[in-house]
Parts: sequence; C-alpha cells; structure tokens
Amino acid sequence: MMDMIKAKLMMDMIKDNDFIKDPNIPGPTKEEIRCLVICKSQVTRKDTVVEVGCGTGGLTTEFAKRAREVYAIDKNQQALKITRKNLEKQGLLDNVRLIEGNAPQILGEIPEYDILMIGGSSGELPAIIREGSKKLKENGRIIVTSILLETRAEAVSTMKQMGLSPDVVDVSISKGRIMERGTMMTALNPVAIISVQKK
Amino acid sequence: MMDMIKAKLMMDMIKDNDFIKDPNIPGPTKEEIRCLVICKSQVTRKDTVVEVGCGTGGLTTEFAKRAREVYAIDKNQQALKITRKNLEKQGLLDNVRLIEGNAPQILGEIPEYDILMIGGSSGELPAIIREGSKKLKENGRIIVTSILLETRAEAVSTMKQMGLSPDVVDVSISKGRIMERGTMMTALNPVAIISVQKK
Amino acid sequence: MMDMIKAKLMMDMIKDNDFIKDPNIPGPTKEEIRCLVICKSQVTRKDTVVEVGCGTGGLTTEFAKRAREVYAIDKNQQALKITRKNLEKQGLLDNVRLIEGNAPQILGEIPEYDILMIGGSSGELPAIIREGSKKLKENGRIIVTSILLETRAEAVSTMKQMGLSPDVVDVSISKGRIMERGTMMTALNPVAIISVQKK
Amino acid sequence: MMDMIKAKLMMDMIKDNDFIKDPNIPGPTKEEIRCLVICKSQVTRKDTVVEVGCGTGGLTTEFAKRAREVYAIDKNQQALKITRKNLEKQGLLDNVRLIEGNAPQILGEIPEYDILMIGGSSGELPAIIREGSKKLKENGRIIVTSILLETRAEAVSTMKQMGLSPDVVDVSISKGRIMERGTMMTALNPVAIISVQKK
Repeated sequence: MMDMIKAKLMMDMIKDNDFIKDPNIPGPTKEEIRCLVICKSQVTRKDTVVEVGCGTGGLTTEFAKRAREVYAIDKNQQALKITRKNLEKQGLLDNVRLIEGNAPQILGEIPEYDILMIGGSSGELPAIIREGSKKLKENGRIIVTSILLETRAEAVSTMKQMGLSPDVVDVSISKGRIMERGTMMTALNPVAIISVQKK
Repeated sequence: MMDMIKAKLMMDMIKDNDFIKDPNIPGPTKEEIRCLVICKSQVTRKDTVVEVGCGTGGLTTEFAKRAREVYAIDKNQQALKITRKNLEKQGLLDNVRLIEGNAPQILGEIPEYDILMIGGSSGELPAIIREGSKKLKENGRIIVTSILLETRAEAVSTMKQMGLSPDVVDVSISKGRIMERGTMMTALNPVAIISVQKK
Repeated sequence: MMDMIKAKLMMDMIKDNDFIKDPNIPGPTKEEIRCLVICKSQVTRKDTVVEVGCGTGGLTTEFAKRAREVYAIDKNQQALKITRKNLEKQGLLDNVRLIEGNAPQILGEIPEYDILMIGGSSGELPAIIREGSKKLKENGRIIVTSILLETRAEAVSTMKQMGLSPDVVDVSISKGRIMERGTMMTALNPVAIISVQKK
Repeated sequence: MMDMIKAKLMMDMIKDNDFIKDPNIPGPTKEEIRCLVICKSQVTRKDTVVEVGCGTGGLTTEFAKRAREVYAIDKNQQALKITRKNLEKQGLLDNVRLIEGNAPQILGEIPEYDILMIGGSSGELPAIIREGSKKLKENGRIIVTSILLETRAEAVSTMKQMGLSPDVVDVSISKGRIMERGTMMTALNPVAIISVQKK
C-alpha cells in the first residue's frame, strides 16, 4: 500500500518552496536540477545511495523517496539538522542515515552502494571520487553536481584518469515570474551535472 | 513481474542515440528535456496521456513507459510511422494509439485524460490548449514544449486568460564532448517548458 | 582634444558598480548587455539617439559617450533624476536631453533621429515601434531590449508586420565570482536584444 | 580622413557571414563574442595587440580595425592563410603581422604590447599566459576565450597564481531564425571570456 502511494509520486519533484531552509546552509538544489540528477542516477528501489555534502537535503529527500537506503554525509552538523527536518517533513526519515564527518574517511567505513552522489566536496573532489568508487558496485553510478568552474574540470579529469568517459551537462535555467505586465525571466545559477557508470 | 521490471527503469531516460530518426521529422526531444517534461507532468501508471505533435516519438516513448495509455496525434503520417518504429524498438506499442489528423478536432473525439502534452501545434496553440483542456480531468496537467519565441508567449497568455498560472522554465543545456585536448561544450537549442495544473 | 580622449575610451563599458542606483528604478543594464546593444546600434558620433525608458541611465550614458545627442524619455521622474546623476558623474550631461512623459506622444514632437532604443515600453511596445519608426532616418536602427517573454514576441511580430526582418539574440550570461575555494558561476537574468535597420 | 571613416565604424561588428571560411579552421568567433571581447579589451588606436591562435581571423580583423598594430600568431599555416584573406577582404592588412609558429617562443621575440588575446593555446595556456604577461605593458590586458571546460579553470587558476583577479563571463547566446511560423531559437556554443588587467 505504502509502496503504491510512493510509486504514484515517482516522477514528480518536491517544490522548492516546500523545503525548510537555513540561511547558513546551501541549497536546496533547485527542482529542475533534482529532476535531472535523479534521471541521470537511474535510481531504483533496490539501490543504496551515498550522498556526500547533503546541504539542505534537497537531493537526499528525492533519493530517499526512490532508493532502498541513503547514507547522507556532511561535515557540517547544521546541514545534517536541516536535512533531517526536511526528511521528517516529507515522512522520509526511515531509510536515511545521516553521518557527520569527513567524506573520504567515512566512505571507507560504509558498505557497498549503487550510487555515489557528490554535491559538495570541500576541495577534496578527486579523493572523494577515487575513494568513493572503490565501494561502488559494478554498473554503479557516480554523479557530481558542480557550481564552481574548477570542480567541473576536476570531476572530468579525475574520471578520465580512471578510464571513464563521463556525461557532462551544463544546465542554465530561467524561470518565468508571471506578472500582470508580462512574464519576467529570472535566471537560476548554472549547475553542471557530471555522471558516469562504473564499468 | 512486468510491473517490477518497468518500475526498475522508472527514472532513467532513453538515450538520444537510441532513437530511430527520420531527416524530415523533428526530434527526438533531447534526453534532458524529456526528463524535465516527465517530472513536470507528474505522470503515474494510472494516467491517460494525450500528446499533440509527437514528431519522432521521443516523449511518446517516455510517456508510454510510465502511463496507462497514450494517444499520440500528428498531422504528418511520416511522424506517426517513425514514432511507431521507436515504440516498437522499445517494446512499448501496447498502450499507445497513434492518430493521424488535426488536433483540435481529434481532441473532441477521445475520452477524458489526465495529461495533455503539446509538442507541436502548427499555429493552433491557443485552440489546442482551450479545446484540449475541456476533456482534461480535474487536477490534470497541460504541458507545452516550445522552441519558438511566439509559442512561449502564446501558451502563457492563453493559460492566463483561462485563469491559470503556469510554471515557465526556459532550459539551455550544453553538453560536454570529451576529447583528448579537453571537454568541448556544445549547446542544445533552448526549449521552454510551460506547465499548469487544472484547478 | 576632448574628442581624442573620448575616442580613447570608445570601446570599453562603464563598470556596473560605477552607476549610482535607486532601489525603485530598474537597471542599470548590465555591462555585457550594454556592450552588445552599443555594437548592434552601430552608433557613431554623427548619430542622434532616442531612448524610450531610460531607467537608471545605463544605456543613456553609453550612448551619450558615443553619439552626437541623446533624447532620453521616461514616464517616471525618479528614473530621469537617477539618469541625470549618472550622466553627471560621467561628465556626459552636455549632449543629453531628459524628457518626462509618454513615449508615443513625445516621439511625434522631436526631430529626426538615427537610432531608436527601446528599453521599457509600459505595455505600448507596438505603438512605440510604429510611431518611433516614422521619424527614424533611412538606414536608422531600432533596438529593443526585452526581459519579458511577451515583449520579445511583440517586438518581432511588429517588425515583421512592418516588412522588416529583425536580428534576435537572447543572451544568458554567468559571471564568475572568484573565491578562495573556486569560481562560483552566478547567472544574470536573460535579456533579448531585437534589432533592425530601416530600409 | 581615413581615421574619420574608421571611427564611423568603430562600434559595429563584421557580420558572421562576411568572413571567408575554411572547413578545417575553427571560427570565425561569432559576432556577439567578438563584440564582448573587443569591449573587455578596452582597445584603442594606440594599442599593440598580440593574438595567439588567430584561427579564421575573426578577432584579428576586429582588432586590426581598432588597434595600432596586431601580431597574429598561429601554429597552423592554413589558419594564417585564411586570416590573411579575411584581412584583405576588409582592407585591413596594413597593420597586421601574421606569424607562424609556437606561441610561447614567439612571445619572447616580439616587442612590448598592450593587449594579449589568447583564442587558442594547444594545451599550453598556463605557459602562454605567464610568458605573454612578461612583455605586457603596465595596465595591459590579457583576454582568454575558452570553449573547453578545462581552459576556463586553467586560465583562472594561472591568473590567480600571478596575483591577479580575472573577470569571468560565460556567454550563452541563442539567435532567432525568423520563419513564417515563428522565431526559432538556435543556440550558439557557450564561450567563456576571461579577462584581466596587469597591475
């Protein structure tokens, strides 16, 4: 029954305004970017997801809706708090473990997983990709979202060095604000989504 | 069993290169746009979808994977042929009805539906939205994809006149082509997605 | 001598931060958009420019630097005040006339001109283009900057009805904010520039 | 007299279609990007410009129109040939020197200059920026145009290491193709323009 209800909502994304926010924590990842990340991840109900840098919990919540279990890691206790609040609000705390700490180290301690989602990397992106890919199952996916010029190049170069050929999309979205005098187009900051499947 | 297999593939999109193409027919709608349209549509397995202007069948195929049934309408017999081929290739012909003809008229002849997807409108967008919304169930969704400057404004203005407040996103995507000397960013043409829920 | 100094600065744009701002007045038009508008206008020191909807005076100032004379029209007295302040700051008040009032009417009262720049139109874009083109000299240019979905389509359709074939560019710019941890890409709202030469 | 004629054309860009093309040579840099590069360069008639990687000669031609002299360097003889043809077509060969060879080496052999424009770098961007900045006069400008993800990050990081804080703009432009049924928006590939002034 529960599953049927969840299945009904499979494709639609939580609205940006439905997230509880904290002014000191980045995110939530915007609706359209969450949608694209979820599609690129090919997530199914059988998958274990590890998320590095969960921030406000935007992607954590979407993965929790669709995966078997999610490990959400962040250095920042405040980020984990707000992520917990958002999971609670959506009734999705059951299959998520929130872990405070340093990603490269924690990745060595958790079991195998199907999806490695990297939303924040505190300057350690190459290490997180390399370390994180060790526990990634065959045909598992790595996804990096990047708002910095440097992490885009770093993600691609690390994956290339690992013999992988990532899919790279840079997404620029403008949203129309409907006003009486017309539809004002307002831009969201561009986000690059770099994704790859382990051979 | 069948359902479980389908459910497994729920989130991921067919790759652009997996579609059979016809040089005279527009499309297929690019992977990322299909992903966003499917999310905005909130499609579930209980839904009936009507698609106006199916072109190569990119969106038809994605809806066929996720909806109960799809009515795909196009004026152009060649478009319906190539859409059929793509549905066949994906094993998705069972729940799709392909209809050749003029959309505003055909919309009057088919039963109620949950989603009206308008990908092509041959200059009749306001009529298709108005006529099409009559058979749209309560809480049903209308989605318009637009590659023309004019249809963006037309879709918004028609919906506003109907008392609706559409969600408008203009999507510009660049894809990275991985080459030895670096990652060349190549742009896809921008597509606007205008979506709205019937009150 | 004066001319040589001005000529030296011909190509570079005033920095966004150098403009005095008023929270109630839109603008200034961003540096990169001013640059593109100035190029599309083909302005020379012999040209008379009429600007409808000067706002903060971003474009007024750039045209004042390069044209023989500028007529800047705005309905809003506060906009004219802030435009005057920016012209003063740049030492460019000499060849600008600031006119408060309704554009279609004022356009009938001023002499012939070479460039009609429309930055704001208060819902009267078609009338301003039609009325404004009457006093436009042969080979004169009309330029419309548009932040609304609707004015883009309106500008193109009015020009097409007048037998003209406009150049349309939709410009999405992200600027890099250099931070210690990397270069954060932040988006400016998209602006369309529609320009055309009178035959 | 000559100067007056040139001054008249100061702001407008050569149309993309006016360039002679060679299928094996990249470019020409699109009109709007040329416009932005020229503005960012702050070029005046007193300036000496060095261009590394001239390709089809799009930027070479625009600089030749506005600078005192231009040194255009390319490894590829065919690029220099087509650049020469385009300069000839525009009557701008007089103040341009075309040099075949390896940029970092050639930069050591030419006199001081005001603007270093890097359009192609064959994997040697950091060396070209470092070597090229030695002969750059005080207040001189370096401009890099980048179509690769990697060169964007490399340009910024090299400039940061040199104690400079570059201006970074990533430009995505769609052009409207006016057709009977409407204005089709077609995207140009994104180009980043990284520019900085020598202290």
